[in-house]
Amino acid sequence: MHISEKLAEARKNNKATFSFEFFPPKTAQGVQNLYDRMDRMHGLGPSFVDVTWGAGGRMSHLTCEMIKVAQSAYGLETCMHLTCTDMERSKIDEALSAAYAAGCTNILALRGDPPRDKERWEATQGGFRYARDLVKYIRDRYGDHFDIGVAGYSEGCDDQEDVDLLIEHLKEKVDAGATFVVTQMFYDVDIFIDWVAKCRKRGITVPVIPGIMPIHTYAAFLRRANWTRCRIPPEWMEALEPVKNDDAAVREVGKGLIATMCRRLLEAGILHLHFYTMNLAQATRMVLEELNLLPDLEAPLEKPLPWRQSLGLNRRDENVRPIFWRNRNRSYVARTQDWDEFPNGRWGDSRSPAFGELDAYGIGLKGTNEQNRKLWGEPRSVRDVAQLFVRYCEGELASLPWSEAAITREADSIRGDLVALNRRGLLTVNSQPAVDGAPSADPVVGWGPRNGYVYQKQYLEVLVSPELIAELLTRVERDPDLTYYAVTRSGDLKTNAPGEGPNAVTWGVFPGKEIVQPTIVETVSFLAWRDEFYRLGEDWAKCYPSNHPSRYVIEDLMDSWYLVNIVHNDFHQTHGVFPLFDGLEVKDMDKTYDESIMNGDHKDAHADASFTATAAPNGVKN
Amino acid sequence: MHISEKLAEARKNNKATFSFEFFPPKTAQGVQNLYDRMDRMHGLGPSFVDVTWGAGGRMSHLTCEMIKVAQSAYGLETCMHLTCTDMERSKIDEALSAAYAAGCTNILALRGDPPRDKERWEATQGGFRYARDLVKYIRDRYGDHFDIGVAGYSEGCDDQEDVDLLIEHLKEKVDAGATFVVTQMFYDVDIFIDWVAKCRKRGITVPVIPGIMPIHTYAAFLRRANWTRCRIPPEWMEALEPVKNDDAAVREVGKGLIATMCRRLLEAGILHLHFYTMNLAQATRMVLEELNLLPDLEAPLEKPLPWRQSLGLNRRDENVRPIFWRNRNRSYVARTQDWDEFPNGRWGDSRSPAFGELDAYGIGLKGTNEQNRKLWGEPRSVRDVAQLFVRYCEGELASLPWSEAAITREADSIRGDLVALNRRGLLTVNSQPAVDGAPSADPVVGWGPRNGYVYQKQYLEVLVSPELIAELLTRVERDPDLTYYAVTRSGDLKTNAPGEGPNAVTWGVFPGKEIVQPTIVETVSFLAWRDEFYRLGEDWAKCYPSNHPSRYVIEDLMDSWYLVNIVHNDFHQTHGVFPLFDGLEVKDMDKTYDESIMNGDHKDAHADASFTATAAPNGVKN
Repeated sequence: MHISEKLAEARKNNKATFSFEFFPPKTAQGVQNLYDRMDRMHGLGPSFVDVTWGAGGRMSHLTCEMIKVAQSAYGLETCMHLTCTDMERSKIDEALSAAYAAGCTNILALRGDPPRDKERWEATQGGFRYARDLVKYIRDRYGDHFDIGVAGYSEGCDDQEDVDLLIEHLKEKVDAGATFVVTQMFYDVDIFIDWVAKCRKRGITVPVIPGIMPIHTYAAFLRRANWTRCRIPPEWMEALEPVKNDDAAVREVGKGLIATMCRRLLEAGILHLHFYTMNLAQATRMVLEELNLLPDLEAPLEKPLPWRQSLGLNRRDENVRPIFWRNRNRSYVARTQDWDEFPNGRWGDSRSPAFGELDAYGIGLKGTNEQNRKLWGEPRSVRDVAQLFVRYCEGELASLPWSEAAITREADSIRGDLVALNRRGLLTVNSQPAVDGAPSADPVVGWGPRNGYVYQKQYLEVLVSPELIAELLTRVERDPDLTYYAVTRSGDLKTNAPGEGPNAVTWGVFPGKEIVQPTIVETVSFLAWRDEFYRLGEDWAKCYPSNHPSRYVIEDLMDSWYLVNIVHNDFHQTHGVFPLFDGLEVKDMDKTYDESIMNGDHKDAHADASFTATAAPNGVKN
Repeated sequence: MHISEKLAEARKNNKATFSFEFFPPKTAQGVQNLYDRMDRMHGLGPSFVDVTWGAGGRMSHLTCEMIKVAQSAYGLETCMHLTCTDMERSKIDEALSAAYAAGCTNILALRGDPPRDKERWEATQGGFRYARDLVKYIRDRYGDHFDIGVAGYSEGCDDQEDVDLLIEHLKEKVDAGATFVVTQMFYDVDIFIDWVAKCRKRGITVPVIPGIMPIHTYAAFLRRANWTRCRIPPEWMEALEPVKNDDAAVREVGKGLIATMCRRLLEAGILHLHFYTMNLAQATRMVLEELNLLPDLEAPLEKPLPWRQSLGLNRRDENVRPIFWRNRNRSYVARTQDWDEFPNGRWGDSRSPAFGELDAYGIGLKGTNEQNRKLWGEPRSVRDVAQLFVRYCEGELASLPWSEAAITREADSIRGDLVALNRRGLLTVNSQPAVDGAPSADPVVGWGPRNGYVYQKQYLEVLVSPELIAELLTRVERDPDLTYYAVTRSGDLKTNAPGEGPNAVTWGVFPGKEIVQPTIVETVSFLAWRDEFYRLGEDWAKCYPSNHPSRYVIEDLMDSWYLVNIVHNDFHQTHGVFPLFDGLEVKDMDKTYDESIMNGDHKDAHADASFTATAAPNGVKN
């Protein structure tokens, strides 16, 4: 969606909105951390995010990559910066087509700073000299596809101090096709408001977005003000100087100063604030909180679907996904990125979904081995592993190898049951409670337009010991309301599902609309998820040295345990799945992996594990 | 579906099944009547219906047409007869490709009788001599697409009395690719059972279907037995002879004889009975009733969808339709027969449904002018017309111009409200009550697989006088749960629907399946229905002479009244739509159309009818 459209909509509703600017980090770990931060900052409800142009080789590639991930995996509307610096026309073309393919529809066209090794800006051979040429070029090539922003310098810029002349340049940029303006950072609101008035007088009628730089540290504050030559009002110095050696106090005082400045802007009718986050969340978050612009957690952000929608070029209509990737959104987007069309309205019988390989970027286990060992400790028995699942369900552990984020409030209603299962060695990988027509505005399970009703079938995905599998499946097959799929890492699929078709496990009924069924359980996807599930476990095992007991215990789970998903098709039954497990418990949960087991003998114990085995009676308590 | 597959399935379930044979009637009215009869006989639950080959010109064309209508509009699995008589190869090709296009997958390949003007059968130049050649030809041309049946003559045939030789011929036909056998009619079960044993011994292993001829009259009974030269057991003559002049008694006695014969067949393991209906329903129905093979009305036929599915070639996956044609199934099939694909799973945003013209066969008002005047009388005022709607809703009138069949039991829960509206001149054209998750096995509103739940939003389509429309729409727009569409014959559409998308008004949730949403309300379809609605009214008006008061009163309704549909989107509200009409009543329902009105002046009275008109206060009672 075009930024100018978003601004117009917000203006119509007289609603203050904001956006965040990020830049490409220098290390891979930095990129990963920034993605996590962008993901979390999505929850603050920005209208869009900017990613600055990493001039030169790898960094510019990274800008495109970040735009794609933000747009596709995190569903953030993006604005890609693009500069003339060091850019031949072919590079510009490449960047624009990457933005296009990613689904990005907003470009901030800049001249850019001179390259580090030069003092004055020069046009690259075959490139553009002025931002207005770049604007015109984009407009010529892509028509109205892109909304094009340009920079406004309310206090002069690097190589030009004549503000009136700069307004003339701005007018030229707008006349060339720019549709919004983002200004350099500033601290003096009066100068800014005067400048906007001047722009308006000069006939620049497009929206002007003020660039706001929150205050992280005193040193950075001074450095940036100095660098952009913007005026610091004396009272700011007076407030900050006394606390300059206390970072926390600087942020606190800074928050107040920035918030006061933002309030004045809002009062002056400037309804959108653009934050230069410097890739940090805290200072920006504090300002938004102070301004009371953060979304109310009890009345959450509008949620068109139960999962985060992608804004990728071809994915905008996508509204059906398998439940298996519920806690691994980004991996699902990555593994399906080559699909020509995405399920819309229904999964579709004719689709033969080809899931991408597990080796692609962003699919394997996140974090370094050390980080993961620190996070998940050194489990030496099934009970230790089960204890991690218990802690995850209780909200004490932020992630598991198969769940990138902490457990959600939705699990509240079944948390006790989940914990009880895990305590008995039935490891719950994924779940959702049944919902029988909750209002679509329900703060926990609601989604979709107002005045609708949402439904869920109870779903449980659980890793089951081979000693319990036969008894469990016998019980499942006895109840006509239950459908299941069960697999091992390399074994055949076993299921009682009627036909190949998908089972809708989440759906909604809305005024004047067709039924929306955004989450399904389905064979081919489950097999793709199976591969990912066992691979993630293997990745976890490999965080430990080859003869480490944790490695053995995790590998044993991966080698012989069954991944089972169960749907209770009668969505009136809120806890229908749990009684299946009554009396089932892994027998020897405290068994540690001693020498003989570590020598490889333990594998034989489960070599015969198969669906035809009868239940081991000692696995059943009563 | 192939007949042999159906037989195998029934055999697996040890279930007795049956089928009906029809022949192409000689007159257009006869064809119409037969369609109605086929439609009603669908309710008896035949596995399939045969249509005999109308040898020669028009009649063979009619066979193809009947196959198409039965398969597409009535959802009956068909078997098309095809004879060698008088058929060049090109004609055979034409017939087969018509059957193929109609979705028919079963052919009964026959040599056929000699043409009327010849005594002995001769092959047509460039045609086929023997049925086995025809079987082989179909098999060569169409592979396994068609199931191919052939005739069996258990008591000899027209020009060959040697039963053993005929078994040899039958073996040749089966070896050429036939997959089932239908026998000539017979009355002596022993002969038939012996003959089947002989066939089996000769290596004919395909299913053998006995042809059963119910007894309609004594004369017809004798004539047919004589014509086919089949043996009449003496006890049959003894039973029928004494009552031969009493047709009702003949049918009653005949029913007993035929039923006894069928029971013996069933006991002998012959599980499928093929009835030569002679295009009559009663005698066959009586036999089926006596055999206890009729479906239980309280536990109705399995109903995969709330409307009758088509078995047309491209329509087999069709599972979404607009609600407007709910009472005009055949017209919907006819008007959409040229679509390349049919909505499946959802109506689909991208679809731009082009509905066929109103002039196509089967779309206009059924019946002759005289029949219709007899049925609907001579209404002279709005009250008279309203009284017809009242009688229809009360189940006392079998049809209205817009509803081909009598009102269903589904309306029971809202019948009183419908009657009350019609009494006040608000003419209810179509409706469904709200259903909030009834079991899919519910005998009235249920459909789809077992253990599911079905839902409906309340729907009401009503013809509204221009004096009431503004007040009604004002009230509708006040309630956010209501969506509506309103049109006049030629005016613009008015709606408060959010966007162009369809509104699902019937849906079902089933174990292991995606949500099915078989009925929708949608703009383009409603406009196509509008045209049909007003045309049907005009057709009705034209049943009366040009200066007849009934013509004026109906034409006035068509010229100035509003067709309005209203959906209550909260399906928990069972009667939510009706309170909208509280106090609304057509003022002058007894006004008759006097001379001055008949002179054409009446049109002016409503010339200004428009949505912007304020409610006429005298139309509102309280």
